[in-house]
Amino acid sequence: MSDSGMSAASFRTLYDRLHGQARWGAGDRRGALNHITPQRLAAAAGEVRAGRTVTMAAPLASSAPDNPEPAARHMKHLPAEPSDVPGLSFAADQIVMNVHGDADSHIDALCHVSYGGALYNGVTPGTVSSRGAAELSIDDARDGIVGRGVLLDIPRLRGVPWLEPGDQVTAAELAAAERAQQVRVGPGDLLFVRVGHRRRRDELGPWDVPRSRAGLHPAAAEFLAERQVAALGSDSNSDAAPSIVDGVAFPVHVLAINGLGLHLLDYLQFEDLVPACEEAGRWSFLCVVAPLRLPGGTGSPVNPIAIL
Amino acid sequence: MSDSGMSAASFRTLYDRLHGQARWGAGDRRGALNHITPQRLAAAAGEVRAGRTVTMAAPLASSAPDNPEPAARHMKHLPAEPSDVPGLSFAADQIVMNVHGDADSHIDALCHVSYGGALYNGVTPGTVSSRGAAELSIDDARDGIVGRGVLLDIPRLRGVPWLEPGDQVTAAELAAAERAQQVRVGPGDLLFVRVGHRRRRDELGPWDVPRSRAGLHPAAAEFLAERQVAALGSDSNSDAAPSIVDGVAFPVHVLAINGLGLHLLDYLQFEDLVPACEEAGRWSFLCVVAPLRLPGGTGSPVNPIAIL
Amino acid sequence: MSDSGMSAASFRTLYDRLHGQARWGAGDRRGALNHITPQRLAAAAGEVRAGRTVTMAAPLASSAPDNPEPAARHMKHLPAEPSDVPGLSFAADQIVMNVHGDADSHIDALCHVSYGGALYNGVTPGTVSSRGAAELSIDDARDGIVGRGVLLDIPRLRGVPWLEPGDQVTAAELAAAERAQQVRVGPGDLLFVRVGHRRRRDELGPWDVPRSRAGLHPAAAEFLAERQVAALGSDSNSDAAPSIVDGVAFPVHVLAINGLGLHLLDYLQFEDLVPACEEAGRWSFLCVVAPLRLPGGTGSPVNPIAIL
Amino acid sequence: MSDSGMSAASFRTLYDRLHGQARWGAGDRRGALNHITPQRLAAAAGEVRAGRTVTMAAPLASSAPDNPEPAARHMKHLPAEPSDVPGLSFAADQIVMNVHGDADSHIDALCHVSYGGALYNGVTPGTVSSRGAAELSIDDARDGIVGRGVLLDIPRLRGVPWLEPGDQVTAAELAAAERAQQVRVGPGDLLFVRVGHRRRRDELGPWDVPRSRAGLHPAAAEFLAERQVAALGSDSNSDAAPSIVDGVAFPVHVLAINGLGLHLLDYLQFEDLVPACEEAGRWSFLCVVAPLRLPGGTGSPVNPIAIL
Repeated sequence: MSDSGMSAASFRTLYDRLHGQARWGAGDRRGALNHITPQRLAAAAGEVRAGRTVTMAAPLASSAPDNPEPAARHMKHLPAEPSDVPGLSFAADQIVMNVHGDADSHIDALCHVSYGGALYNGVTPGTVSSRGAAELSIDDARDGIVGRGVLLDIPRLRGVPWLEPGDQVTAAELAAAERAQQVRVGPGDLLFVRVGHRRRRDELGPWDVPRSRAGLHPAAAEFLAERQVAALGSDSNSDAAPSIVDGVAFPVHVLAINGLGLHLLDYLQFEDLVPACEEAGRWSFLCVVAPLRLPGGTGSPVNPIAIL
Repeated sequence: MSDSGMSAASFRTLYDRLHGQARWGAGDRRGALNHITPQRLAAAAGEVRAGRTVTMAAPLASSAPDNPEPAARHMKHLPAEPSDVPGLSFAADQIVMNVHGDADSHIDALCHVSYGGALYNGVTPGTVSSRGAAELSIDDARDGIVGRGVLLDIPRLRGVPWLEPGDQVTAAELAAAERAQQVRVGPGDLLFVRVGHRRRRDELGPWDVPRSRAGLHPAAAEFLAERQVAALGSDSNSDAAPSIVDGVAFPVHVLAINGLGLHLLDYLQFEDLVPACEEAGRWSFLCVVAPLRLPGGTGSPVNPIAIL
Repeated sequence: MSDSGMSAASFRTLYDRLHGQARWGAGDRRGALNHITPQRLAAAAGEVRAGRTVTMAAPLASSAPDNPEPAARHMKHLPAEPSDVPGLSFAADQIVMNVHGDADSHIDALCHVSYGGALYNGVTPGTVSSRGAAELSIDDARDGIVGRGVLLDIPRLRGVPWLEPGDQVTAAELAAAERAQQVRVGPGDLLFVRVGHRRRRDELGPWDVPRSRAGLHPAAAEFLAERQVAALGSDSNSDAAPSIVDGVAFPVHVLAINGLGLHLLDYLQFEDLVPACEEAGRWSFLCVVAPLRLPGGTGSPVNPIAIL
Repeated sequence: MSDSGMSAASFRTLYDRLHGQARWGAGDRRGALNHITPQRLAAAAGEVRAGRTVTMAAPLASSAPDNPEPAARHMKHLPAEPSDVPGLSFAADQIVMNVHGDADSHIDALCHVSYGGALYNGVTPGTVSSRGAAELSIDDARDGIVGRGVLLDIPRLRGVPWLEPGDQVTAAELAAAERAQQVRVGPGDLLFVRVGHRRRRDELGPWDVPRSRAGLHPAAAEFLAERQVAALGSDSNSDAAPSIVDGVAFPVHVLAINGLGLHLLDYLQFEDLVPACEEAGRWSFLCVVAPLRLPGGTGSPVNPIAIL
């Protein structure tokens, strides 16, 4: 819950320490997805017991005043209108989406963040041109991200309906939530941290999200490294705002994506998953994230599915 | 392999017979997804053994001369350029997609096809307006479509690299492929039928897909009904072109989506899945289809994941 | 300056009276453009003396918090990057625009407004389908709207920098501005009414434009009819907000577009034109409005050019 | 009509000679628009006699198989559907356009072409970033391009309905067309050269335009320089394809935009203008080109208007 500030030098030291733990060779482009071994993936299938599935995505293309360029959907054909096609008519539409728009559920590819003159694993930012990302694009995750998912519910731990904008979740709180929920995050897990952003939005309406968000404290990235999580998702974008790090606006993005090679899942919602976990009496599940196949893409809209 | 033509009257009789088998009440909006019971879903998780995942999607936003309005992706921010954000820079892009574009992997919602003045289950086409589909939108599948997937490989059965445009797959061939591949399609399965469209495209280049496609013979829809499949996918769009039914351009779309309440998955690719199945020595797997959350949407781009 | 409210019945009476003055036959699709005769158009060329041109458009694709879905522009090719084209490289971009977006300069086609169950001249609203407007589209103005332009500057008349949101410009004020500026609006003229919206935005920043705008008093539409103007433009959207008419949100749009067959030009800016007129010592000019050729379109972005 | 090829060295010599004639100082960003003086512009207004206007644009957003990513238009609101707005309903749509798409009428800004490591007047290509063009954008022409227009009709000169793809128009032919049409291109004129591309398309259907086009012979750029034209438009894109210059794909684009600072107008149509000129008995007119206000833009869709 600390928000006492972090100096640029302390942040750099933290980055260097974490960055040194992403060790899959100079040619690696999968980052922390390497933690998902076939054995761990097969074991995760054992999480399926009730035969129930739950979305972790928020609706796209809704009116979104907290998003300056929201996703949009337009109709192309209406089935009630005459058709060029003999014997039937179609309903069809088009979607337009800024992949990393605030409020729209999406995944960040490892090319998304440049820090200190490099992308993840020292890849030069110049590999991303107007044609897209020649390296580290979301297409590297085209076979899906599948593993054991674990949801840690921080408002539940704190006994509040949601964290307020600006609140920060520390490593100690993540560990406390594990104990309270009787689950332990381990190697290859997909970790989801609920701050209650979506519920707050549903109840109080949208606010100036780009400038005020609850999120992880930067030092909590040590927890991610130590537990060897494979991906990190949140109902915020994982980074609190304003940033407490001098001169670095998105410290968790830098540490997680650029330093640890973690794909981030932003602006999810867990309002369907929480009651399902409560009913099942556990906070782990098989989780499938299926990014669209976008060669060169910096990320993708996603609908992560929890299977209990 | 028959393409001897079907009269409008025969088609109507077939439609009426199949339509009568979709029996989940007047308020039903899930159609054949009802075949996926919790028991069947939980059992499908048992298909995961090797801990391996495979995409069934084709790349989006590729140069697509067989698609008059292809999906597109544009860069919004380049990480090699100066940034407004302190301490880091971002790669970000935007995507634009006609959901039902030829060549782009997507799922059709149950509102997609109007036939005889009605959508699936008698819903009026007027429920789809310029705001989107008030009924039967893809959001009804927001929790994902998860079950046992089965791939039937028709070119393998015929001993050819791919089916030629215009070729039709009969129910007898589907049954023959089952026997040859030692797998049996059953209730709640997600059935995938390979005609080799994508491999032909990769090897010979694109062609006039809207006018010439391999696909299922309309009468093969009886197989889908009888086996109670929950969804149908293909590397074509399931419908052969030109149509052999007098006056009905997309007979399989009509029978499957509108008649049986089957979500169709169009323009997938199985070129990664075939060798994975060969290696595993079986043609069934856990399958997860995660449509984007598009309230009112007529479908969604998807990346179906096979987990073996 | 009155904002004392207008009853639904008074509004309907006003509408009926004005509507009756648009008399070019049942098949007419050009509305008040009919006031621009070849003679008047040729005479308007005599307004060109100094050989100077001035834009009346505001920049598109700017950051626009007063516009929930602003126009956007994306780069497709950067000339500093390697090129597929031998010997040279290109800069190229894409634009996306909601034609009638608040803050973006555009023209409204005569199909834009349906009132009392009809478009202009009794055309049925059903002629506009998801394919576009079969009647009254902006393509009817594809040869451009060219005539004498007259700018009436209401803040100048009132001695204020701009009108405040909610302020209404009466017919009496339009006549007073004519006298003060020594110009008289006549048949076939393109009338531009400055309320200072754009200057206020430049100086104070954007505000909630959809809910609070200066504009014309509905009764000022009588002035438009009497003077037989051919088109009406404003740096607002001609309609004040909130509306003073019971139950009618955009009364000037209804009276002008639907009743009189006037093309409206919304969200222009006159901050370049005012000093040019001052320097020239007159408030009339040759004016050219060139809508894009958008068959079926409900309007178009435009950059009206004043030639003095 | 020559297509005997031009060596890279000859082309470079030609480029250097023409480039040396664009002399408005190191800070110039308007290029050949400088040829339009106030006197010439005022004189051009004298071309208006009949009071008639004619579009030179082709329809946007039409089905365009010769354009891999055509402009598109989608409906946002239909007036026949219930409305959120009290008392009326709206028809509204959205447009999407690649500014330089083949088949869509547009203007190229001076930043459009980089050659020999520089944009027009030595500006560095790095001034164009993912945010747009910081220099030489189309916003430099925001006050419109207004002057005397002259149409030279080459198929008329040759006695053919259109030039075939690959045909090249020489300087000698331009001069011959002047004589035949009794008009002389002079300083500050907007020159339009008809090759009949659009008529061929209307009659024979679209073809592979990116690879086969009629256009100007590169050496005809000497004519443009000598006559001091201010802008050049064509119903092709001014460049023939395939290129006859070794190693330079768009030699006229390089010579005209990059060398001479000429704005190019591509994919216009003159099928309406030709009969209007015939009727008027002359081939000159007042011409107004009004690019949209797109700060940073590499060009704009346009609808150039001829006023006779």
